[in-house]
Amino acid sequence: MEFYNFLNDYSEGAHPKILDELKNTNYKQQQGYGDDDYCKEAAELIKTEIGNKDADIHFVSGGTQANMLCTSAFLKPYESIIAPKTAHIEIHEAGAIEFAGHKINTVEAHDGKILPAQIQEMVEFHYDEHMVVPRLVFISNTTELGTVYKKSELQEISKMCKKHGLYLYIDGARLGAALTSEQNDLSLKDLNTYADAYYIGGTKNGALIGEAIVINNPALKERFRYNMKQKGALIAKGRIIGIQFKNLFTDGLYYQLAKHANLMAAKMAKGLAEKNIKFFVPSESNQIFPILSKELIGKLEKDFGFYIWTKYDDKSSVVRLVCSWATSEEAVEEFLNKL
Amino acid sequence: MEFYNFLNDYSEGAHPKILDELKNTNYKQQQGYGDDDYCKEAAELIKTEIGNKDADIHFVSGGTQANMLCTSAFLKPYESIIAPKTAHIEIHEAGAIEFAGHKINTVEAHDGKILPAQIQEMVEFHYDEHMVVPRLVFISNTTELGTVYKKSELQEISKMCKKHGLYLYIDGARLGAALTSEQNDLSLKDLNTYADAYYIGGTKNGALIGEAIVINNPALKERFRYNMKQKGALIAKGRIIGIQFKNLFTDGLYYQLAKHANLMAAKMAKGLAEKNIKFFVPSESNQIFPILSKELIGKLEKDFGFYIWTKYDDKSSVVRLVCSWATSEEAVEEFLNKL
Amino acid sequence: MEFYNFLNDYSEGAHPKILDELKNTNYKQQQGYGDDDYCKEAAELIKTEIGNKDADIHFVSGGTQANMLCTSAFLKPYESIIAPKTAHIEIHEAGAIEFAGHKINTVEAHDGKILPAQIQEMVEFHYDEHMVVPRLVFISNTTELGTVYKKSELQEISKMCKKHGLYLYIDGARLGAALTSEQNDLSLKDLNTYADAYYIGGTKNGALIGEAIVINNPALKERFRYNMKQKGALIAKGRIIGIQFKNLFTDGLYYQLAKHANLMAAKMAKGLAEKNIKFFVPSESNQIFPILSKELIGKLEKDFGFYIWTKYDDKSSVVRLVCSWATSEEAVEEFLNKL
Amino acid sequence: MEFYNFLNDYSEGAHPKILDELKNTNYKQQQGYGDDDYCKEAAELIKTEIGNKDADIHFVSGGTQANMLCTSAFLKPYESIIAPKTAHIEIHEAGAIEFAGHKINTVEAHDGKILPAQIQEMVEFHYDEHMVVPRLVFISNTTELGTVYKKSELQEISKMCKKHGLYLYIDGARLGAALTSEQNDLSLKDLNTYADAYYIGGTKNGALIGEAIVINNPALKERFRYNMKQKGALIAKGRIIGIQFKNLFTDGLYYQLAKHANLMAAKMAKGLAEKNIKFFVPSESNQIFPILSKELIGKLEKDFGFYIWTKYDDKSSVVRLVCSWATSEEAVEEFLNKL
Repeated sequence: MEFYNFLNDYSEGAHPKILDELKNTNYKQQQGYGDDDYCKEAAELIKTEIGNKDADIHFVSGGTQANMLCTSAFLKPYESIIAPKTAHIEIHEAGAIEFAGHKINTVEAHDGKILPAQIQEMVEFHYDEHMVVPRLVFISNTTELGTVYKKSELQEISKMCKKHGLYLYIDGARLGAALTSEQNDLSLKDLNTYADAYYIGGTKNGALIGEAIVINNPALKERFRYNMKQKGALIAKGRIIGIQFKNLFTDGLYYQLAKHANLMAAKMAKGLAEKNIKFFVPSESNQIFPILSKELIGKLEKDFGFYIWTKYDDKSSVVRLVCSWATSEEAVEEFLNKL
Repeated sequence: MEFYNFLNDYSEGAHPKILDELKNTNYKQQQGYGDDDYCKEAAELIKTEIGNKDADIHFVSGGTQANMLCTSAFLKPYESIIAPKTAHIEIHEAGAIEFAGHKINTVEAHDGKILPAQIQEMVEFHYDEHMVVPRLVFISNTTELGTVYKKSELQEISKMCKKHGLYLYIDGARLGAALTSEQNDLSLKDLNTYADAYYIGGTKNGALIGEAIVINNPALKERFRYNMKQKGALIAKGRIIGIQFKNLFTDGLYYQLAKHANLMAAKMAKGLAEKNIKFFVPSESNQIFPILSKELIGKLEKDFGFYIWTKYDDKSSVVRLVCSWATSEEAVEEFLNKL
Repeated sequence: MEFYNFLNDYSEGAHPKILDELKNTNYKQQQGYGDDDYCKEAAELIKTEIGNKDADIHFVSGGTQANMLCTSAFLKPYESIIAPKTAHIEIHEAGAIEFAGHKINTVEAHDGKILPAQIQEMVEFHYDEHMVVPRLVFISNTTELGTVYKKSELQEISKMCKKHGLYLYIDGARLGAALTSEQNDLSLKDLNTYADAYYIGGTKNGALIGEAIVINNPALKERFRYNMKQKGALIAKGRIIGIQFKNLFTDGLYYQLAKHANLMAAKMAKGLAEKNIKFFVPSESNQIFPILSKELIGKLEKDFGFYIWTKYDDKSSVVRLVCSWATSEEAVEEFLNKL
Repeated sequence: MEFYNFLNDYSEGAHPKILDELKNTNYKQQQGYGDDDYCKEAAELIKTEIGNKDADIHFVSGGTQANMLCTSAFLKPYESIIAPKTAHIEIHEAGAIEFAGHKINTVEAHDGKILPAQIQEMVEFHYDEHMVVPRLVFISNTTELGTVYKKSELQEISKMCKKHGLYLYIDGARLGAALTSEQNDLSLKDLNTYADAYYIGGTKNGALIGEAIVINNPALKERFRYNMKQKGALIAKGRIIGIQFKNLFTDGLYYQLAKHANLMAAKMAKGLAEKNIKFFVPSESNQIFPILSKELIGKLEKDFGFYIWTKYDDKSSVVRLVCSWATSEEAVEEFLNKL
């Protein structure tokens, strides 16, 4: 077998149904900038799936863009974002949020998650005009560590947000993986109750490109497309993203792809555990974080690509292994055989 | 014949070769964020075509993004952009340039173009620290009015820029149409001499998505990818854009598609002129701007889509007709038959 | 007589009453950041003078700061400002408005003023999400050319703003000069009806430092001090600015000082006119713009400082002569004697 | 005795010498925007005092403005600031740094200080274009907790900065208190070696208003006044700040005032310690942080103003007591008598 990457969930292209429809619709003339039939159909399918016909759906090209765009659109200049230290916006967006003018107030993460009490504490810490005003809580589901928020956790976070007049925003780059996790007890419909806005990740779940922003809170909907255009997020041939989501939200493809990724990761986690390998955080979705000895890492690196997450101790490191909709069972077995 | 749009050059999908390669490469694992084989191949093909192996090539998802990203990366906070009043950045980017912190100093446009003397005048107008410092000249080729810069015009503009230490940046959303215009005497190679940076538009010339930023000036190359990430312009499956440009710059496809668009527009312009219809600006590329009576507009609107550009007088308006790589000769003929 | 400057209205320090009170109150302990007794007294005096007890009054250190702060606080990211081309924010603030993220849509100025029809036209020009949304009209009174808005002009502008849901903001760096102009038929009270917000300039009318922002529109008041702090506009010893305005708005000092400046300028304008010297714009306040021959300019420059505003023709230039609260009648006479 | 504030070091006005010179120079015509004689004299005096004739000196109205202005001027969009969690820019500037587009990477503070190893760790943590690039280390001296950097500490920090190509910037709001602390072994001259830029605080050391920015690193000097104007930091009557610093840097007034503040605080700390009161951090300058019982706080609050810094345990809190150039020995004694 040739070298195989467990590096991330965007190593391959798109689910073939998407490529087929790109081809089949190629010569149909469509309006630009997301006013095409496919974006409209996709938006309707998503609204049905989430059970909120009043939601606004917008399609953008990536997660960093979605996060920067939404926070910039939702917040006043002096308003800030509360997020766990492990948040994508804090570490992996090259300062996009701050470029758009907003401060991130970070709290210690618990397996990638935020706790309601931390929100309370952060709100109370800020009390006069010399300080920013925390106004939005940012979480990711799955978290950047592959863990999954339970319904009760989200309920409590949402309650705390409402108590303090904070928006709850969810980075759903891997929302499919979250919703199809064995640990999950949430549905997309639940997010209408808990989240003011979130995005449903396409890129990391079988799309070529695209994330679908869902805005539930009417106060946040105003002239959102102006914000999109200003941030370079309106795509001329918006049809391309519409087609991704139209297919993902037809016949449950979105869930099927995510479930497959989770299953492959679970198989890998099981195999690792059987070799008495410990994990940095619980393995709950398509990203797992085993602690491997340097020797083993050296051996595996010859045949497999993966990301060394962080040093664990002098002899071992935490690595990240990611499975995707396109990961073959064979590849996982090969990996396990090399242990 | 069904309703036909001459509304813009992004009404259809992509050239079939591009769709085919998306399919053929779909399962090949690739690095993310533009480090894939296709982006690399595409960059090499472009560097060969422009005759500058030292250029930096970056792929982004749209023109507004390219313009905002480049100006933000190239300029210091107090530095401004000189542009014609008709410039895309001035009118049609919802304030993206200003969102990123920079002022645009506009000058009257001459058929969409800037004149060297206007640059000189704008530079001289700004002389102390109460004013911005003009530092970059923004032009589009073709212009937003479909006109084409002649080599001598670009030479003079470039000379003026160098005289005053200004960068010359070219928005090439329709650079293909410019370079294949009957009026054109420029080649991509010439831009190495004249432009510090520019982008080669894909979206409006047969790509699904994507623009290729070319940076010639070494001083502007530093850590450009950091700027990209910060502005949400690094695409996880960068392969998708790489594949567009790899195909466009193989066997001259880029020029063929643009030339076809120009030919269709020329045919239409000729047909209109034969009916004694006048034009708002010279018809030099794939966008033409005939002045039509309100009656005629009303009649044509039933079967054809086009954009009413501006009122001309009480009886007539300027309309914009755009042909693309996908425009059929038949559609043009149908249109002319309806006159 | 030694060299005398008619360069601007901030060449001297402050009215002696202000310096006296700085001294008399020097050791009284006060709250910081504008919560001191003097700021409170000054705010009450201003609210009485403008006849709006519900207005919010904030003190800042300069006009550019006031303009950037207010527009940033009042506007959403995609909202823009309509202003005459001669506006201070357009030319003389080094891009402060754009640094804070907003576009300025300029219109041709008429003796420094904007006309209601220009506002209408600019609003209508912007109609979709590819464009900014004009949301605030910026005017200066006196204008940057020393002219004064008549009540009827302001009424019409205000009406047009209300029609289109635009805020009207007035840069009052020289509001004193406007309100005491012979041409004036406005009072501060009138501004409650017409302007959503404005600032009363202290620096150019006898204060050491400071401008007083007045916010009439309740929708614009929210957490303004947070915006101030964020823009570096909260002064630790805010008392210093409070003392300026407390004195300026006691016993009509503000008007007396401005009236003196206007009288000196009128005397100078009269003297110039008697020598058949023409003016670039009507002489209505403390700034006048005579057109002088190069010879005369050369002669005057030996003894007097002034600003050469713009070239008029090959033989003459427009110069700006500014009188202030501190300009002596003797200095004006000396100048006229040199003609 | 009436109610007395130990709330901060800006409760009173200015040293009388400053007020006198404001009066004595009041009618002398001067250039605006910091080009006056007093700013020039003050800059020369400072350059002599710091022993760097090549430094650039700029006067601004406050510390938040100085910090935002410098970091915005010095950094590229994707570059970030490393600072202790207790830093003024992190907590008490309402997001000014982020408004100007830059991220702050915080590290745990050690009595308000940063350690060289923390800088190293933060630099190493950031390694690719998905992350910001740390480029400037921000420290305050005295720190926000009143502690003072030793020469050896600053040397090590500076060395670490140079190793990684980072700028060292010092917030010197209370630099006078630092340099006259009993713990201090630094001189202003040392800062030429260690700091790329810093500001010398006037407001908190006997000035009415004003901070003096010192730029040592030639690479950071370019067109700084353009940045100042853009951020609203150029004061029209710049003379007012020039006069502050001219007097502070004549005959060692700057040091005398700071020393007095430190002595008063030391007297108070000694008195508190004699009552067996413990401190949250070492008492090294004019700010001290005793841990007081709730009962005692309740009693003292009737006669004295101070800031409750943070809860210590269920029975006691940390309070901040600040002495200034204007604090009388009598007031300190009254306070100690009330214990």
